[in-house]
Amino acid sequence: MDDRASVLSANLAFYQAFERKDPVAMRNVWAGAASDCCIHPGWEIARGWAAIRATWTSIFANDTPMSVIPEQVGVDVWGNVARVVLVERVSMDGEAIGRVAVTNLFVRTPEGWRMTLHHGSPITPSEEEEEPDDIH
Amino acid sequence: MDDRASVLSANLAFYQAFERKDPVAMRNVWAGAASDCCIHPGWEIARGWAAIRATWTSIFANDTPMSVIPEQVGVDVWGNVARVVLVERVSMDGEAIGRVAVTNLFVRTPEGWRMTLHHGSPITPSEEEEEPDDIH
Repeated sequence: MDDRASVLSANLAFYQAFERKDPVAMRNVWAGAASDCCIHPGWEIARGWAAIRATWTSIFANDTPMSVIPEQVGVDVWGNVARVVLVERVSMDGEAIGRVAVTNLFVRTPEGWRMTLHHGSPITPSEEEEEPDDIH
Repeated sequence: MDDRASVLSANLAFYQAFERKDPVAMRNVWAGAASDCCIHPGWEIARGWAAIRATWTSIFANDTPMSVIPEQVGVDVWGNVARVVLVERVSMDGEAIGRVAVTNLFVRTPEGWRMTLHHGSPITPSEEEEEPDDIH
């Protein structure tokens, strides 16, 4: 498997852990290092695995079924660092709740590619999407 | 100058170009490659320098004086890739308008460290900050 395919596989493992609210799988996705960073939409920066784990514990405590579909996925690899930039289409309980622009960063380790950064920012709906114009 | 200092210097050049609304300085900060990505708070992903330049043209068109102060700056370098994670304290016309969590990514080039990603997400004010509680 080439680097891009391996990185996409690590990225997919992240979304599977996320949707399944699986703390063990989520731990295995991350490097687990002091330099790990995670910024959820609207949140402060969580630095280091201990702080990041606490954010997932809080998110996974909500037991509403959640779907997070990656779209517009772009991958770049520079040596031992890989970047995935994408848009997440997020639904809760089957209802679309919004789109999130995401940067996922991975580092190559002896165990394979591991996440060192997840940064998500809510995409503000355009006026057309938010307020359909019935007049025209 | 070691790598961390060089990266911090490139990061500072970005904020100087931003505050001065200087399109030439901003161009010189970026790698200028098809893989460049920029996500402003609430915006869609801009991919490639041409699309990114258009976002800065749009932002710089607002001639209200702007200040963007980086805080909580953390730097990590992996070979030819460097990551800066920080919080921007943004003011317009001297008035604080909010805080933005940021990932800046740089790549080493023959001309020095150049930006390949800027991703900013608005930090939602905590309830205490947004609505001071006068009762207690």
